[in-house]
Amino acid sequence: MDKAVFFDIDDTLLDTSSFAELARRAAIATMIENGLPLKKNEAYDLLKEIVREKGSNYDKHFNSLTKHVFGEENNLLIALGMITYHNVKFALLRPFPKTADILIYLKSKGYRLGVISNGLTIKQWEKLIRLNLHHFFDEIITSEEVGFEKPNKAIFEEALDKMNCKAEKSIMVGNKYEVDVVGAIDAGMSAILVNSTIPEEEKQKIKDNNLDVKAVPTVGDLDKIL
Amino acid sequence: MDKAVFFDIDDTLLDTSSFAELARRAAIATMIENGLPLKKNEAYDLLKEIVREKGSNYDKHFNSLTKHVFGEENNLLIALGMITYHNVKFALLRPFPKTADILIYLKSKGYRLGVISNGLTIKQWEKLIRLNLHHFFDEIITSEEVGFEKPNKAIFEEALDKMNCKAEKSIMVGNKYEVDVVGAIDAGMSAILVNSTIPEEEKQKIKDNNLDVKAVPTVGDLDKIL
Repeated sequence: MDKAVFFDIDDTLLDTSSFAELARRAAIATMIENGLPLKKNEAYDLLKEIVREKGSNYDKHFNSLTKHVFGEENNLLIALGMITYHNVKFALLRPFPKTADILIYLKSKGYRLGVISNGLTIKQWEKLIRLNLHHFFDEIITSEEVGFEKPNKAIFEEALDKMNCKAEKSIMVGNKYEVDVVGAIDAGMSAILVNSTIPEEEKQKIKDNNLDVKAVPTVGDLDKIL
Repeated sequence: MDKAVFFDIDDTLLDTSSFAELARRAAIATMIENGLPLKKNEAYDLLKEIVREKGSNYDKHFNSLTKHVFGEENNLLIALGMITYHNVKFALLRPFPKTADILIYLKSKGYRLGVISNGLTIKQWEKLIRLNLHHFFDEIITSEEVGFEKPNKAIFEEALDKMNCKAEKSIMVGNKYEVDVVGAIDAGMSAILVNSTIPEEEKQKIKDNNLDVKAVPTVGDLDKIL
């Protein structure tokens, strides 16, 4: 049976947080120019707080922002914010520098590739398609589609099932320890953390339980261990 | 009290049907190139049927299309269809040639201007903002916001109320007799039909009841009667 590598998308294959921040700052600037009575940093912090509270897949962040400020929604500012956010987001959307190289490398080493992502199915497909990365993946599994979010092991099991792969021959690559690594280990897979560090208190647990968890700086360093 | 002209948006100020058709045809072509097993016209007719059935504000037309064809949704084709549809739609989005001239003319004649549109608030604002037409309007009223759709007279009454205008000094301009004209008359306003013709069977009714209903070829001809 085949060996497989599954990837998280946001902040693993693509620099999502960085383009989302720039897109939100651009949206805020336009809204302020058109009458939002806040300072830039103040408005940005408020928006970030709303995104944190409602989740990034909620589609009415700007509605909440104007309602918070004016006591009612302001359609002009909401629409201006959304147009600017989407324009900037798609202008900036890029994979990390070595993402494509590494996917090609893994293919050449005989790995089957998949995606396991918490998010809305078509939004996640859209990112991969716009960057022409979807061709690399045999299966793209989203939490919306499966009905379970990482770290729930059910989403990993569904992915393994769809790929017809065994957990013990499969690796999850992601940037969130509690989400990507914990869930994958729970499902019997091994895991590689990128763009983040293993929490100190987890290191002993990994050693004691002899868990197959590694960390590399970025997805571009996977060729050093795979 | 002021005199006012209210406008419908789609196919009245903007050539929506024409750009929507081209955007849908482009989406279909991409989907077929990537594996949708239908002929272009066949797929377009099926999509049009789905749009007719679900309404144009439903956001899963391409989901329904792939489900109809394959028995299940195809995320690659859905996302490709949506990306292409939106790219083409925004590339083509233009007002009718004389829309801006007429809005400037009406302002110079002392009319207050408003919008009364059946549709989703932010989608309708987005169209006006992208074309920089929103500056002309004192109030933009959508069915989503008000909770009533044209021809329900409640949406016209809400608009008059917001504009602080009297029905008898207000005119509705739209392209749908049964929606724009019938609703406006019902609310006590006068009405001008554009891009369409008054149905034969209505002409006698207009005469008998002495209704203030006129028709001009396009929005660009409003300066001949206002």
